[in-house]
Amino acid sequence: MNINLLPDESLEELGCGSLVLIQKKDGFRFGTDAVLLADFAKDIHTDRTLDLCCGSGIVPILLSHKSRATELYGLEIQETVYEASVRSVEANSLQDKVHLLCGDLKNCTNYFPRRSFKLVTCNPPYMQPGSGKQCDFDTKSIARHEVLCTLEDVIRAAESMLGDGGHFCMVHRPSRLCDIIYLMRKYSIEPKRLRLVQPKKDSAPSLVLIDGLWRGGSELKILPPLILYDDDGTESDELRKIYERDLV
Amino acid sequence: MNINLLPDESLEELGCGSLVLIQKKDGFRFGTDAVLLADFAKDIHTDRTLDLCCGSGIVPILLSHKSRATELYGLEIQETVYEASVRSVEANSLQDKVHLLCGDLKNCTNYFPRRSFKLVTCNPPYMQPGSGKQCDFDTKSIARHEVLCTLEDVIRAAESMLGDGGHFCMVHRPSRLCDIIYLMRKYSIEPKRLRLVQPKKDSAPSLVLIDGLWRGGSELKILPPLILYDDDGTESDELRKIYERDLV
Repeated sequence: MNINLLPDESLEELGCGSLVLIQKKDGFRFGTDAVLLADFAKDIHTDRTLDLCCGSGIVPILLSHKSRATELYGLEIQETVYEASVRSVEANSLQDKVHLLCGDLKNCTNYFPRRSFKLVTCNPPYMQPGSGKQCDFDTKSIARHEVLCTLEDVIRAAESMLGDGGHFCMVHRPSRLCDIIYLMRKYSIEPKRLRLVQPKKDSAPSLVLIDGLWRGGSELKILPPLILYDDDGTESDELRKIYERDLV
Repeated sequence: MNINLLPDESLEELGCGSLVLIQKKDGFRFGTDAVLLADFAKDIHTDRTLDLCCGSGIVPILLSHKSRATELYGLEIQETVYEASVRSVEANSLQDKVHLLCGDLKNCTNYFPRRSFKLVTCNPPYMQPGSGKQCDFDTKSIARHEVLCTLEDVIRAAESMLGDGGHFCMVHRPSRLCDIIYLMRKYSIEPKRLRLVQPKKDSAPSLVLIDGLWRGGSELKILPPLILYDDDGTESDELRKIYERDLV
């Protein structure tokens, strides 16, 4: 395996197959969110997928392993993040399947034909400008805050890419669920599948996973919650399955 | 206690205090939904409440016991249902607090001044016309299906009644959550609190409880799920508390 690491980077094992990921030691690092998103989207049957705000490339890299897709695209706006993600693809010898581009999703029709995907995924910046701790315009802050794109930009871009039967899958914070549902419907992406992610069985959700169908009819299916940890704090069987760890 | 029952009616104990309810033996009967809705709404501080589609009167009757409100109004369109609900109020000696009216919520500004409530509740018909088993225009069917009012009618009526700081609390099916969120926002009622009701800790939700604030800002709080039964099928402690049963 050919892995080029810069001094400020580390190599992380993704815990699914033998996949690895290059990340900045002090930058925005992949979280459970992206892993859950890839797992949530993996059964949508399609050859071609597109991940918006793809960051380290984790979602297309995981989907290359978890789904049957054979052409997995990703779009990331930050040059330094993009540059490392290309090396992650090489480190996993996925150059034939995973194709990453550096560009702004607000212009995504410059990079991909309209209506050309059946699956678009996104793990977008969660925080609205001005909320939380924000260090102006560093890479971490851009990945976390809606500095370079808003939730509406993401959903508008997804809509432009989806064709007939196309699904848009996103992971986000529970506090934004109304914005998400409202905007998805505004852009003709009807939420069809919703799953709340809970740290424990009786805790409030920490994340929402949502799957919308382009021009779908109105009827939402709310799935049982995805519970991450058992009462004693150990990983739940479902989380271990998602990471492809042996069950204890 | 003065209780007038017709031959086709029965008297049910509500399980909260010593409240009772008159119901048709073969009509639409109160379910856990209404009890959960009253409990979900009970801590919204106000003297005056209004329940739309109030049916048997269960929500205002329960709120007279669970909340601090002193004037509890209810509006029901079906004359025979309304007539029994008035006798339920008498059976509980609540004539001074609970005031029920027979009328169409589409004209609710004929019965109540606009912007005159801080709490409006509703356990509306769940099914859209044409879905499920529908017996044309009997009382049961009207209570279950959107025959005489749609979800949009309910939300529009609620909006007209809410004043500053006013909350609208509703119970509904999970499959309609997107419609609910979309319509609430369309009518300036911002969802602020959402609770999913699950039969068991790992099952899909069977109901949603939602609380919106008139002209509220966008930020939703999703609460931990309300789990009705333990793994062994017995009522959960939380459900027993809601019904004010002794804990086992």
